[in-house]
Amino acid sequence: MKKFNRIGIVGLGLIGGSIALELKKRKISKYVYGFSRKISTMKKARKRGIIDRYFLSFEKMVSSVDFLIISTPIKVIENYFLVVKKINPSLLMTDVASVKEEIVKKAEKILGKNSKFIGSHPIAGSEKSGIDAVEEGLFKNKTVVITPTENSDKSCIKKVEFFWKSLGANVYFLKPDVHDRILGFTSHLPHFLVFSLIETFISQKNKKEMMKYFGTGFFDTTRIGKSNPDMWTDIFFSNKEVLVFWICEFEKTLKKMKNLLEKDRIDEFLKKLKKIKEVRENIENA
Amino acid sequence: MKKFNRIGIVGLGLIGGSIALELKKRKISKYVYGFSRKISTMKKARKRGIIDRYFLSFEKMVSSVDFLIISTPIKVIENYFLVVKKINPSLLMTDVASVKEEIVKKAEKILGKNSKFIGSHPIAGSEKSGIDAVEEGLFKNKTVVITPTENSDKSCIKKVEFFWKSLGANVYFLKPDVHDRILGFTSHLPHFLVFSLIETFISQKNKKEMMKYFGTGFFDTTRIGKSNPDMWTDIFFSNKEVLVFWICEFEKTLKKMKNLLEKDRIDEFLKKLKKIKEVRENIENA
Repeated sequence: MKKFNRIGIVGLGLIGGSIALELKKRKISKYVYGFSRKISTMKKARKRGIIDRYFLSFEKMVSSVDFLIISTPIKVIENYFLVVKKINPSLLMTDVASVKEEIVKKAEKILGKNSKFIGSHPIAGSEKSGIDAVEEGLFKNKTVVITPTENSDKSCIKKVEFFWKSLGANVYFLKPDVHDRILGFTSHLPHFLVFSLIETFISQKNKKEMMKYFGTGFFDTTRIGKSNPDMWTDIFFSNKEVLVFWICEFEKTLKKMKNLLEKDRIDEFLKKLKKIKEVRENIENA
Repeated sequence: MKKFNRIGIVGLGLIGGSIALELKKRKISKYVYGFSRKISTMKKARKRGIIDRYFLSFEKMVSSVDFLIISTPIKVIENYFLVVKKINPSLLMTDVASVKEEIVKKAEKILGKNSKFIGSHPIAGSEKSGIDAVEEGLFKNKTVVITPTENSDKSCIKKVEFFWKSLGANVYFLKPDVHDRILGFTSHLPHFLVFSLIETFISQKNKKEMMKYFGTGFFDTTRIGKSNPDMWTDIFFSNKEVLVFWICEFEKTLKKMKNLLEKDRIDEFLKKLKKIKEVRENIENA
């Protein structure tokens, strides 16, 4: 497939910035343009050479590119769709958000069923964020989920797939709602639980004393508790119904496990833990 | 303080084996003896040179050492106390278990109030276990909690403190019940939650499909789900009342967080997440 001529990226955080870096390094696009709300971020990106040029107006960038990647917080994506509709409604677009159904629906609502927006979600985030967290090879062997709808243009899907594969990613396709349900468990629920675990700690009186006794287990388990609060509030509320479902599922399981403990059902509990260890090891080797 | 002459270790797993290794490397004891239920484990330890000698009978080791470290599963520690009582009741002893009140009480019950058993808990475990997981420098800059009681002999406490410091550890003192309450939160609760999260996954129908979409966040958070099932069943049931208390505390917090989500209280939720991130970062830098 032909490489890209002018790719524009709006939002130059960990994901957007790392895409830019990779596009330049792998020479996937002749030009890489960037737009961010913060001039300082754009200047940094330009200085590091991960974009060829930045724009002070999003409108101008939209009229100068043939592929737009929206790498911004979920709640503002709609605003960018509105600008695209006005200036270049047939522009090929993708995004990188962790929730898909809401965004895909908004794209169709704003840009119509012939919109050339194809949703994407690179599972490559971390607790770090922002332009300073930009990382070479971030997408190598990482999973990217593409979430077309029945209205999506086949050639647009192909181009977006080609784009991600060019960055070294493994591409899977899911319906937007299926994506949200699965990621609601594999990603959103663990984040919600870890935040809640730290919140439980915050409500304790003897925090200073307790703090001496955290081990590596706690640190690894709660690393994602350092994640960007705005981004995760955004994700949780965009996938609210699904997440509430998963929290309830977890609550039920936790109650069952607690019940085995309270009722001294040691053998049954041990049997479960053995299965849990086995499954956890299988997940990693899958 | 004088170094040790003959240290005996019963249980040559990750912790017991790593203690032996360090004792030899740092020349803290003239002789290091080992006992394990499995001859193969003792032979491995001898072959690796981390013990000078192994015993086929625990009784014989007890009569040959001047300091005994019990590094076995919690539920069998009592049996070793019974043997010590018979053969060498004034032997200086410590252990390495993650739960302390039950063990300290049993020591006083079996060996009397003049017992020279001083409970210890090196916070140095990992999801790995067994002789093959033995690691050099495992205790360096790690926290070890020593849990004396009001009956504990001062010079015994000093010796046990000296022992752990010789291995490079930072030593703290806690009452046994305070230890169990704090570690119930910092260590046992996170393990219980992670096991329950994986258990929730196990009950899903489309596991094979879901497995493709785990990211590094999930893997880091659930790494401790690979921990030794026997050991953790042992820990959970030995600290049952405390753990049930912490699970209930967590359940309450989770419910509150879920409630903010369901009621669309975004600002309040975001404020909490900001505080959570800050606290999590402070914990690590403490």
